[in-house]
Amino acid sequence: MSTNSPEGLRSLLDAVASGQVSPDSALLSLKDLSFEKVGNFAHVDHHRALRTGFPEVIWGPGKTPEQIAKIMMAMRDRSNTIMATRIEPDVFLEIQTLLPEVRYYDRARICALCETAIPKRLGTVTILTAGTADLPVAEEAAVTVELAGFGVDRLWDVGVAGIHRLLAQREVIDRAQVLIVVAGMEGALPSVVGGLADCPVIAVPTSVGYGASFGGVSALLGMLNSCASGIGVVNIDNGFGAAMLACQILRGWEKS
Amino acid sequence: MSTNSPEGLRSLLDAVASGQVSPDSALLSLKDLSFEKVGNFAHVDHHRALRTGFPEVIWGPGKTPEQIAKIMMAMRDRSNTIMATRIEPDVFLEIQTLLPEVRYYDRARICALCETAIPKRLGTVTILTAGTADLPVAEEAAVTVELAGFGVDRLWDVGVAGIHRLLAQREVIDRAQVLIVVAGMEGALPSVVGGLADCPVIAVPTSVGYGASFGGVSALLGMLNSCASGIGVVNIDNGFGAAMLACQILRGWEKS
Amino acid sequence: MSTNSPEGLRSLLDAVASGQVSPDSALLSLKDLSFEKVGNFAHVDHHRALRTGFPEVIWGPGKTPEQIAKIMMAMRDRSNTIMATRIEPDVFLEIQTLLPEVRYYDRARICALCETAIPKRLGTVTILTAGTADLPVAEEAAVTVELAGFGVDRLWDVGVAGIHRLLAQREVIDRAQVLIVVAGMEGALPSVVGGLADCPVIAVPTSVGYGASFGGVSALLGMLNSCASGIGVVNIDNGFGAAMLACQILRGWEKS
Amino acid sequence: MSTNSPEGLRSLLDAVASGQVSPDSALLSLKDLSFEKVGNFAHVDHHRALRTGFPEVIWGPGKTPEQIAKIMMAMRDRSNTIMATRIEPDVFLEIQTLLPEVRYYDRARICALCETAIPKRLGTVTILTAGTADLPVAEEAAVTVELAGFGVDRLWDVGVAGIHRLLAQREVIDRAQVLIVVAGMEGALPSVVGGLADCPVIAVPTSVGYGASFGGVSALLGMLNSCASGIGVVNIDNGFGAAMLACQILRGWEKS
Amino acid sequence: MSTNSPEGLRSLLDAVASGQVSPDSALLSLKDLSFEKVGNFAHVDHHRALRTGFPEVIWGPGKTPEQIAKIMMAMRDRSNTIMATRIEPDVFLEIQTLLPEVRYYDRARICALCETAIPKRLGTVTILTAGTADLPVAEEAAVTVELAGFGVDRLWDVGVAGIHRLLAQREVIDRAQVLIVVAGMEGALPSVVGGLADCPVIAVPTSVGYGASFGGVSALLGMLNSCASGIGVVNIDNGFGAAMLACQILRGWEKS
Amino acid sequence: MSTNSPEGLRSLLDAVASGQVSPDSALLSLKDLSFEKVGNFAHVDHHRALRTGFPEVIWGPGKTPEQIAKIMMAMRDRSNTIMATRIEPDVFLEIQTLLPEVRYYDRARICALCETAIPKRLGTVTILTAGTADLPVAEEAAVTVELAGFGVDRLWDVGVAGIHRLLAQREVIDRAQVLIVVAGMEGALPSVVGGLADCPVIAVPTSVGYGASFGGVSALLGMLNSCASGIGVVNIDNGFGAAMLACQILRGWEKS
Amino acid sequence: MSTNSPEGLRSLLDAVASGQVSPDSALLSLKDLSFEKVGNFAHVDHHRALRTGFPEVIWGPGKTPEQIAKIMMAMRDRSNTIMATRIEPDVFLEIQTLLPEVRYYDRARICALCETAIPKRLGTVTILTAGTADLPVAEEAAVTVELAGFGVDRLWDVGVAGIHRLLAQREVIDRAQVLIVVAGMEGALPSVVGGLADCPVIAVPTSVGYGASFGGVSALLGMLNSCASGIGVVNIDNGFGAAMLACQILRGWEKS
Amino acid sequence: MSTNSPEGLRSLLDAVASGQVSPDSALLSLKDLSFEKVGNFAHVDHHRALRTGFPEVIWGPGKTPEQIAKIMMAMRDRSNTIMATRIEPDVFLEIQTLLPEVRYYDRARICALCETAIPKRLGTVTILTAGTADLPVAEEAAVTVELAGFGVDRLWDVGVAGIHRLLAQREVIDRAQVLIVVAGMEGALPSVVGGLADCPVIAVPTSVGYGASFGGVSALLGMLNSCASGIGVVNIDNGFGAAMLACQILRGWEKS
Repeated sequence: MSTNSPEGLRSLLDAVASGQVSPDSALLSLKDLSFEKVGNFAHVDHHRALRTGFPEVIWGPGKTPEQIAKIMMAMRDRSNTIMATRIEPDVFLEIQTLLPEVRYYDRARICALCETAIPKRLGTVTILTAGTADLPVAEEAAVTVELAGFGVDRLWDVGVAGIHRLLAQREVIDRAQVLIVVAGMEGALPSVVGGLADCPVIAVPTSVGYGASFGGVSALLGMLNSCASGIGVVNIDNGFGAAMLACQILRGWEKS
Repeated sequence: MSTNSPEGLRSLLDAVASGQVSPDSALLSLKDLSFEKVGNFAHVDHHRALRTGFPEVIWGPGKTPEQIAKIMMAMRDRSNTIMATRIEPDVFLEIQTLLPEVRYYDRARICALCETAIPKRLGTVTILTAGTADLPVAEEAAVTVELAGFGVDRLWDVGVAGIHRLLAQREVIDRAQVLIVVAGMEGALPSVVGGLADCPVIAVPTSVGYGASFGGVSALLGMLNSCASGIGVVNIDNGFGAAMLACQILRGWEKS
Repeated sequence: MSTNSPEGLRSLLDAVASGQVSPDSALLSLKDLSFEKVGNFAHVDHHRALRTGFPEVIWGPGKTPEQIAKIMMAMRDRSNTIMATRIEPDVFLEIQTLLPEVRYYDRARICALCETAIPKRLGTVTILTAGTADLPVAEEAAVTVELAGFGVDRLWDVGVAGIHRLLAQREVIDRAQVLIVVAGMEGALPSVVGGLADCPVIAVPTSVGYGASFGGVSALLGMLNSCASGIGVVNIDNGFGAAMLACQILRGWEKS
Repeated sequence: MSTNSPEGLRSLLDAVASGQVSPDSALLSLKDLSFEKVGNFAHVDHHRALRTGFPEVIWGPGKTPEQIAKIMMAMRDRSNTIMATRIEPDVFLEIQTLLPEVRYYDRARICALCETAIPKRLGTVTILTAGTADLPVAEEAAVTVELAGFGVDRLWDVGVAGIHRLLAQREVIDRAQVLIVVAGMEGALPSVVGGLADCPVIAVPTSVGYGASFGGVSALLGMLNSCASGIGVVNIDNGFGAAMLACQILRGWEKS
Repeated sequence: MSTNSPEGLRSLLDAVASGQVSPDSALLSLKDLSFEKVGNFAHVDHHRALRTGFPEVIWGPGKTPEQIAKIMMAMRDRSNTIMATRIEPDVFLEIQTLLPEVRYYDRARICALCETAIPKRLGTVTILTAGTADLPVAEEAAVTVELAGFGVDRLWDVGVAGIHRLLAQREVIDRAQVLIVVAGMEGALPSVVGGLADCPVIAVPTSVGYGASFGGVSALLGMLNSCASGIGVVNIDNGFGAAMLACQILRGWEKS
Repeated sequence: MSTNSPEGLRSLLDAVASGQVSPDSALLSLKDLSFEKVGNFAHVDHHRALRTGFPEVIWGPGKTPEQIAKIMMAMRDRSNTIMATRIEPDVFLEIQTLLPEVRYYDRARICALCETAIPKRLGTVTILTAGTADLPVAEEAAVTVELAGFGVDRLWDVGVAGIHRLLAQREVIDRAQVLIVVAGMEGALPSVVGGLADCPVIAVPTSVGYGASFGGVSALLGMLNSCASGIGVVNIDNGFGAAMLACQILRGWEKS
Repeated sequence: MSTNSPEGLRSLLDAVASGQVSPDSALLSLKDLSFEKVGNFAHVDHHRALRTGFPEVIWGPGKTPEQIAKIMMAMRDRSNTIMATRIEPDVFLEIQTLLPEVRYYDRARICALCETAIPKRLGTVTILTAGTADLPVAEEAAVTVELAGFGVDRLWDVGVAGIHRLLAQREVIDRAQVLIVVAGMEGALPSVVGGLADCPVIAVPTSVGYGASFGGVSALLGMLNSCASGIGVVNIDNGFGAAMLACQILRGWEKS
Repeated sequence: MSTNSPEGLRSLLDAVASGQVSPDSALLSLKDLSFEKVGNFAHVDHHRALRTGFPEVIWGPGKTPEQIAKIMMAMRDRSNTIMATRIEPDVFLEIQTLLPEVRYYDRARICALCETAIPKRLGTVTILTAGTADLPVAEEAAVTVELAGFGVDRLWDVGVAGIHRLLAQREVIDRAQVLIVVAGMEGALPSVVGGLADCPVIAVPTSVGYGASFGGVSALLGMLNSCASGIGVVNIDNGFGAAMLACQILRGWEKS
């Protein structure tokens, strides 16, 4: 359908203005454009890309592999890149049976339908982790950014207990455009980075830790209470959400 | 002191490279540049503007009016805009006795030393509140943004229980460059706004509410768990922090 | 036994009044009427239908399949519809061995003994979910309502991050008699629906989410703190309880 | 303005259909109808009564007396009954200076502008409290119900530790149409009442208690986990919200 | 050893007083009496029965079957009844291999070494449960009481949502000497029973429930905040602890 | 009224049995006996003494001085000892204006109407505190026990950090009949005492502490998790509740 | 009394060994030595200095000024340095009336009776704070250390958001013998310091912060979960406790 | 490499001072010295031993066996003792395949590469546990101390409910240099020990317990609120961290 893009939408509206299309039939087109009922379990939001600049992303938990595959198929006609997050390997294998062309990023637990060569956009997201155990969350962020077409700079295992490891990478922080800082345990890394960086900092607490880490709550609280002001925090283990915010920031640069 | 700017700093480093200044005396200059001991209670971080693009901001609670005034005086030589947050009216009056030229923004509880006409920068932050009681937090954000030189679009009292009030302002959201969404109680407004906006969204939970709102915890959790992905959350009632992140994002546009 | 109905009860009381039955023997009949010891583990509350209009419903967890089957058998003589909630598929299979005529609603995890055609009553409950992952809870509500004889309108996957999906269904909300709104994550959907609807709204938080959703606590708090006043909240994942309240409301209409 | 009623609205829409009013000017009327900007701090939602059957109610905390008075004045033209909740006595006195005709219900902490004789509607809400200390919350519910035109049956101090006090009032429970049960401490009263009543039960936890009552959290949890299914719970101390739900239920009877 | 009883201990002390035994060798005897090292993992407290009237009881979790069996063997010479709590069936089977004469109470998950006929003592503990799912905890209490030689009255499934089930058993409560009341979910049963009973009431919260029951926390809070004063509460699911307190109370009667 | 005692009640029932009093008029007498409406705010539970052996006790918070005085007057005809807890000094002074004969125990914050010489009963409660700051709670327990006619042994400031202070009082613990152990901070005293005592132990956590004591929660948790089994715990600062349980235990001795 | 010192105690024991003093009278002396009853509210633990190397310290909250003064007087004969913590200025003034020679350290809120020149011991404690608002807690630690005779190195306002302020003081950390690190908000400073220091690190969370700092809980959790292993944490705002541990460590050096 | 020791480092710096090595190449050497990139997942911190006196220790959770083995190999050239904590038996077996010389301490779940005979250092750590179930945590501490070359005194199962077991070991506490006290449930043991000991006390809460022990939170809170001042607390189950602090304290003795 031709209205599946900003250009298509504008054409439709012009046709209404010129009387070629009646408001009623335009309304129907637009309603259909905006979302689509998939089976009896989902409303795919095609309009989302128009509204927010990103296609809807499928959140895996609580959906059967069949439901995920069907939603991906429904979205395929209208979007070049379709992704689903929090997909465990066995779920991926079942999706693959139904959709053989689907790709899997195992460290990031992301499943995607996309062109072989994703068109590159200007801008890079710099991603830091405090420890090795934070990698799966950081990779969820990194793969999301890459699927959106932006570049990624990865800097793993630079936690604050060995502050010289971080300071030795000072120039990476200096040249960053947007920073995503991933940390578990006490979640102190964003505070130190926030005091060094001259760009927006997004903090992702992880559930890495034990005892009084309470599944990431300590890291989350550490980040919310950071003495380095101006840090945006996302949910525990939410690498995807951090990537979405980072891309939104970079898209602003594009528009400006 | 001439090193109080990026240009000054570069001159000093060139002088070291050319042998005009010994590394040891350069070190002393830089150390002094980077922070200054004020009384026996504070280290003012002059280097911060170089590192992060913002002068250090004074957080009022737990400091006496005298301490706040002394820190402001120590910063005055090196910065055009000096601000202190969370200043209650009676604290302001005591500061004013010591520093008569200080300004007070009462709804925002911010106290500032700045030029009469702050130089304008490109870029505007759009600030929304769910209710009237969220205003003090939103004003803390707004005044911080204005002191940093950016523009502010204010849209108060558009909470989700009267969703048409928000939808009627759809165009304000559409044209926003960065959004700060301030809400107490269940904190649902950023979720709805995040689904409509095509720009970065920063969510500020407020302590507005009672009973199971737990001083803003419910709003905070609502924002962290938002089904609209890509929202950066700051601490409860932290309008200042949200403003810092928003300005950091707009500054990125300037640099690009 | 003839006292197993309001009519039977009234007959007994008239017989006491007229001296045909002694108070002592009436007392014994009534005691037996009101509950029955099943094995050495349960007191089935036959009187409950008289008192509250609903037969006692069996809560599955912590009971063995044999206990559930025995309680169902004990209730069968006095009630046309007997249901057990939170029955996992393997538990159902064991119950079925003992009670072959039992039915299973797998998405709702409800097990029931009932007539093939449940007599229809006037009134319909409209059930909304924010996401696809909320379906099991919503189905528990829907099947309970249907077993009670009322109609159900289902509207799945209309969460607030794509507010136009909900607004497109505005007329479903407008014509609703009672609304059950099921949502996980931040639980914002009841706030928006509560601002649109002109009928009682019952909110069901679900454990859908991760990290700071704390197994449904965030959604629960969001609903309790809703800025849309007049929403009744039930326990996390308690689709059954929401249905019971909705049916109680519709039964009031019948009586009026 | 004539559109301030369902009838007025229908006239406007017919005028649009017949071409007497252009869609653009209709839009302007409707926009104005739906809400009104008051000062630079509030959007009064006039449309709310059309949408939800109740005029918007002013929540007092965080608003100055002047703001409350101004919002009341802005609403006065369009609504017969205007109420503000959580108004402390000294705030009332300041409002009264600006709006001398305002009434105050001190036990309920409600402030209202209304006709001397509120037109009566069919239906009564029965309100129970566990203890004497729960009265202010129960009165907030009672006065709200009365201002909405429905009747109230009050039954105070019938907590479960003296169960015979409750059972002696069995007939009050039996004839109830909707029950609001207010309790602090362990919040057990709704569980017992819910097992006796044959009508919808709304539970209101109060902050009455000490130590491990955690400001009403224990009562709230007790009500959410009630073994008597089908109880709708509202926020701690939220007598107003319970009344809104109760009235919404009774209005359904009117419509049926 | 003869000092393994109050009588033996008194003899030893008399021997010291008369000079027949030196203080030093008496000290050695007493030290050995008071506890014994078992393997390199435990100090069995033989003195405990002297001090507190109960032999030490073995808490199963975190101990290997071998450790439990060895501690039981070490205690066997000095005590007629040895019990271990929280023993899962597979752990029991391993203990039985090493100690074939050990008995197992499966509903109570208690493992014991004791005489075939435990000598009966005067006094009975009445145990109530709110629901069928509370049985394992109630049985842990019941078996502990029986192993201590006291009688048990069991009354299961009399929760407050069907208050007439409880009231019909009024005479059981009236004649009770000590009551243990076991309940999950909202934990309201002890409040009602505490208002009826004229004897000490011990409340045991159970982890029965879901969602906001938080593994028994809601029931625990309900019991701690009971409006019926004078209820002693034990840890969640701690049927054993409740039994210990109940027996301690009955032993007081014996002594008086 | 003659039915205000067990003897009076028995007479009434005999009169019914012999036909001298009709059941209907007996019912009326009993209903009046069981509770009495005081003003429009309370139901005084006269029957309570019959049911539970203690007259109803007035909990002060949330009641006006007038309400407390009126409830005391209503109870005076039927009970020799009437007490109200949590009465601050200024509230007492207002009550005294209305009821000059009322007594005040300032450390315990208890207000009582009672005979000059309370008849003594057999049995003593031993009360220990960990620190000096726990005294108000311990005194609430002590005065309650004394008003009930039992004896009190007080042992203050014997916390576990100076364990020899406790051990030097070993004989006080040895001869105790019932122990109430009051402690704040980590609440460890009941664990040590529970390992030494051969009688029931009731633990009262206090809100003494700071920081992570969370208003008594740490002490409460310490007591619930005590490794000394068989300790009954009451709410934070609930000296009154501990006393009620202790008296209930001693009354059992009387009956036996 | 001569037994008020290790030397005195040894003399007494030798006298017992040589038969000059009977064990019974020695016991009496020792019992008196070990603690002393002050008024009817406290047991002063004189033995504590013998056992733990520190005299008992008086914790001010919950004690009246009179009680504090009386305890100080009771301790004066046996100890050269007596201190009380958490003494507000007005409480100090009342103590001073009774004990004119008492000293007050206002920033530390410590009140002390001590010689003019406290004898110096070998060893120094280095104390760091993250911010200016942490000073009162840090001063409580510093004054305690100084009263115990050790030296103090103070380094204020070196929080992690300006990491260069800390790194510039690297040599202070390098030469430290024991470090006390005081921080509020996210409590990250001990993690960075712990990764740099080669000596024991004691972390003190403070209640400095707002919103999700929850009165110091976030800082506490940050410190407990520190990725820099080997940090000992004390209660929120417990500068005194940190000082006690630091002195205990330095005393070990003395003994070695 | 020769800079892998304090001596090597000093040589390098001298060479810079004398001009034999240029600052730039010295910088490169030092950068390499300070950490090393292992694969694309870790930065091994070789400099840590220089900075803090301990080699970096590998925290097992969230790392694959391959990652752990590779990090161990990278550290082998520079350190005599390399250890990894929280290694489950099956993970150990996979590491052993890659690194056959690795040792496993099963009760402590520690995996180490070290010389057969670790050189002994002066100083001993005394470790106490409250119960048998606390052993794994205590062994983690003990093995860490032993791998660091210090001695260990183990005293298991001396919890406060049998206080004479602890007092009988009074001399072990008296002669201790540093104490680690490990306890679950209410965590009271450190309070009693802290009142007896004259040396630093480190408290380790364990997750031993059930119900309201909340996975060790109750023990943690008990220790943080200890009435025995001067106790340093580490995270729940963190035997390793306690050992690190204890060794740091003993190393201070060495240096002094």
